[in-house]
Amino acid sequence: MNDRVIDAQSQPPAPSQRGAGGRSGARQPSLQPVNLLAKCELFDEQWQPRIVAEVNDYQFKIARVEGEFVWHAHEDTDEAFLVLEGELRIDLPHGSVTLGPGELYVVPRGVRHRPVAEREAKLMLVEPRGVVNTGDAGGERTAEGDRWV
Amino acid sequence: MNDRVIDAQSQPPAPSQRGAGGRSGARQPSLQPVNLLAKCELFDEQWQPRIVAEVNDYQFKIARVEGEFVWHAHEDTDEAFLVLEGELRIDLPHGSVTLGPGELYVVPRGVRHRPVAEREAKLMLVEPRGVVNTGDAGGERTAEGDRWV
Repeated sequence: MNDRVIDAQSQPPAPSQRGAGGRSGARQPSLQPVNLLAKCELFDEQWQPRIVAEVNDYQFKIARVEGEFVWHAHEDTDEAFLVLEGELRIDLPHGSVTLGPGELYVVPRGVRHRPVAEREAKLMLVEPRGVVNTGDAGGERTAEGDRWV
Repeated sequence: MNDRVIDAQSQPPAPSQRGAGGRSGARQPSLQPVNLLAKCELFDEQWQPRIVAEVNDYQFKIARVEGEFVWHAHEDTDEAFLVLEGELRIDLPHGSVTLGPGELYVVPRGVRHRPVAEREAKLMLVEPRGVVNTGDAGGERTAEGDRWV
């Protein structure tokens, strides 16, 4: 039954409800802020980012992650990671970065990286609309795009 | 003396040190994450955003704010506010939104708004490079652009 609730919440909200989500021309945006950790409670799947807001053609996404993701790169864009809860390691060709809550890191375009979380971590990502989570790697861990929560 | 330290910190970092700040072609980005609240301790001025990272042509800025800002709008861009510490109220033509830590709000382009903080709050802003803090209002509260911390 809980799944049903989660599904209902994961429908794309009407433009006026998208946390003032960057719909140009929306003159009466929602008066509700987006509580990032509360939004993370609305879905269970790991490595499946959900959009929570848009700024022009950039998307703010949240994700629950645990374990090792695939090595990949985004040839056309930088990608920002902000840890909300837990700890995230980002492996890079020349070393690793470890982020705790309130820490931000930007992987430059074209740089191969592998996100890793020993225990579940909750993240916010910022990147242009349409970026695929597995970048150039593809494969079974590629998430469905454009899912709002 | 403390001012001297703060000034030294506020110089634009070399591209390789910009928290992997979106310099295309940087193949060996810094391995240091940006701790957003720690960065806020490196300057005192209120309503004077500092850039901490870039994603393509978008900037992540932090700011300390207190009191009422000026009413203004950004005609060409949406603007994202994320509260790191404290509480921020954003007055809009049709009401107000109040954000606590971990809460995000996007003011759509063209929508007049006035940020207000009863006590000092610390924020992260995300917007395209070159956005002026006072938007169309200008005036004495316009901050110098392009200051990194």
